[in-house]
Amino acid sequence: MEIPVLQNILSANDAIARRNRERLEKQGILTINIMSSPGAGKTSLILQTINHFKSKARIAVIEGDVASRIDADKVYQQGVPVVQINTDGGCHLDANMTANALDNLPLEEIDLLLIENVGNLICPASFALGEDRKAMLLSTPEGDDKPYKYPLMFAESDVVLVNKIDLLPYLDFNMEAFRKAVTGLNDKAQIFPVSCKTGEGLEAWFSWLKGERRKKKHRSS
Amino acid sequence: MEIPVLQNILSANDAIARRNRERLEKQGILTINIMSSPGAGKTSLILQTINHFKSKARIAVIEGDVASRIDADKVYQQGVPVVQINTDGGCHLDANMTANALDNLPLEEIDLLLIENVGNLICPASFALGEDRKAMLLSTPEGDDKPYKYPLMFAESDVVLVNKIDLLPYLDFNMEAFRKAVTGLNDKAQIFPVSCKTGEGLEAWFSWLKGERRKKKHRSS
Repeated sequence: MEIPVLQNILSANDAIARRNRERLEKQGILTINIMSSPGAGKTSLILQTINHFKSKARIAVIEGDVASRIDADKVYQQGVPVVQINTDGGCHLDANMTANALDNLPLEEIDLLLIENVGNLICPASFALGEDRKAMLLSTPEGDDKPYKYPLMFAESDVVLVNKIDLLPYLDFNMEAFRKAVTGLNDKAQIFPVSCKTGEGLEAWFSWLKGERRKKKHRSS
Repeated sequence: MEIPVLQNILSANDAIARRNRERLEKQGILTINIMSSPGAGKTSLILQTINHFKSKARIAVIEGDVASRIDADKVYQQGVPVVQINTDGGCHLDANMTANALDNLPLEEIDLLLIENVGNLICPASFALGEDRKAMLLSTPEGDDKPYKYPLMFAESDVVLVNKIDLLPYLDFNMEAFRKAVTGLNDKAQIFPVSCKTGEGLEAWFSWLKGERRKKKHRSS
């Protein structure tokens, strides 16, 4: 009798994330998982991104929160399709929640899907949703030592946006020390200092998104 | 035959937390569990508190972090006993980690134990450590809508410190709206606007701690 030896079994979350990815791939949708601490500026980044790409791409948003629909309401007012996920105490989105959200979006009419994860610098980094890329924000008031304390998310992210640079004059935030800390964990991460309040620096983020959309189209065609 | 029906079984965490509490009670140690988002100012609050009580009470600190010993080093430099717990990816402290930390502290020489939880506005609220009181910080750059999005921690905390009020002139933070949101979840919470950078407002926190120590001594005697 042969004993079956199973290798590389995906976790339930990874299996569902793969299905999400295939589904999004089929429609050519570029999907970005946006993560950060509470109040670092994820929603502001999404609103700025909608505003920039409004006439250039069809955007949709999935909003993840422990409770409330405050962020989804803000996005809805911009006239883009949005689904709110309330995790009801859960500290991160997972692939199954994302699959349910995809069921409620008009996928054939979307070019760019932005997923706002739950505000948490730890757990979201461990759960694939089916995204193409992970982007994270670190806001300057949180301090430049955060990569040492929360290494996984910095190691996992393709883009690190340093938000609230408009507050730099009032803080002891050392951008060079921060860059060094991030690069030590992840030498491929793109680092973009921005202010989602004033708009400063956001061109770099928009250009990066454009480049990713171009690559995606190239892969799909 | 009688079938045993067990009620009110404590979870493993609650059982260990109760043992921690008994152990701390025996020594008359007032223990505060300090929680917040990453970078909201827990370590600064602890350093200010050490500085204020240095000649008045014997303080010790337990530092919780996913990784690194940056905060423990800062506390150690103040000359007070400190234990660093690294959760190695875990998103909160639990009672068992705390029990191990207590084994490494000179309990008979401590009046006030400050426990800095992992930076996370969600999970730490669900795990008792054996503390007398829970205190949380919300820093003004995080925004005044956080109680709606992360209700449990605000509902569970005895004290809510609103830190970084020195940044208020540069932010859209509505203190009245914030107070209303907190009170709606928890009408017993004490709310103290403070700046751990300038020291503004910290007298209220020190007075509250003094009051809690007095009550504790009264109970113990």
